[in-house]
Amino acid sequence: MLNKTEKYVIIVGCGRLGGHLANMLGEGKKNSIVVIDKNEASFERLNASFSGFTIEANALEIEVLKQAKIASADVVVATTNNDNINIMVAQIAKSIFGVNQVVARLTDPSKEKVYSELNIETISPTALSALEFQRIILRK
Amino acid sequence: MLNKTEKYVIIVGCGRLGGHLANMLGEGKKNSIVVIDKNEASFERLNASFSGFTIEANALEIEVLKQAKIASADVVVATTNNDNINIMVAQIAKSIFGVNQVVARLTDPSKEKVYSELNIETISPTALSALEFQRIILRK
Repeated sequence: MLNKTEKYVIIVGCGRLGGHLANMLGEGKKNSIVVIDKNEASFERLNASFSGFTIEANALEIEVLKQAKIASADVVVATTNNDNINIMVAQIAKSIFGVNQVVARLTDPSKEKVYSELNIETISPTALSALEFQRIILRK
Repeated sequence: MLNKTEKYVIIVGCGRLGGHLANMLGEGKKNSIVVIDKNEASFERLNASFSGFTIEANALEIEVLKQAKIASADVVVATTNNDNINIMVAQIAKSIFGVNQVVARLTDPSKEKVYSELNIETISPTALSALEFQRIILRK
């Protein structure tokens, strides 16, 4: 039986961030996770208890995204370390497959406008961390 | 006259994160900032309006830290992309110079215990970003 909070999440890029996120979201099998990465070794970052699926392939190929059943996904997350790949994956997910929620990792904040115009949410690890450092420093 | 909120902050590492933080903390000249990086080109990340000081040198050399007046610093922040350098800088700041607050960027969360035993606060951009992705994804 499907749990009410269950989401079908596709994560593109199983680097440090993508892998960590996959492990978090996959915990307790609350969500269904598919992780795509072109480098098989990246999947070693996944916990032994990870119960989702992995696809070793280039996520910019439409056939790969179809194989991941992207049209059924609730969320597509692009977390590679390449902003251009993230934006392409996000655009394909949003515009071609109509995925409801698309979130992309963004290294270069100057590209933020492009994403927001496309209705794609972004997360900048650098900006986020700088804010956290500032919060800690100015707290005392 | 010193503003009540003014802090003397030394930032080691002027990469994307360190540079962004220096710009944020230096805004409006609210805090006094010194940024140390061994690569002069890194300082190009600082805003034209940045009013702090830059030192092009290796922050692991005690003389460099003395030049930065580390003993007077309210906060030392280590944001290089090398965890070992960050932990060494943090230890020197804490143990040798008795800096009150030391915060270090931490890429590998398995080292977190070492830092906390040394009373050094840490920020992991990866863990922070993964939490933010999770928050956004599970919000809807």
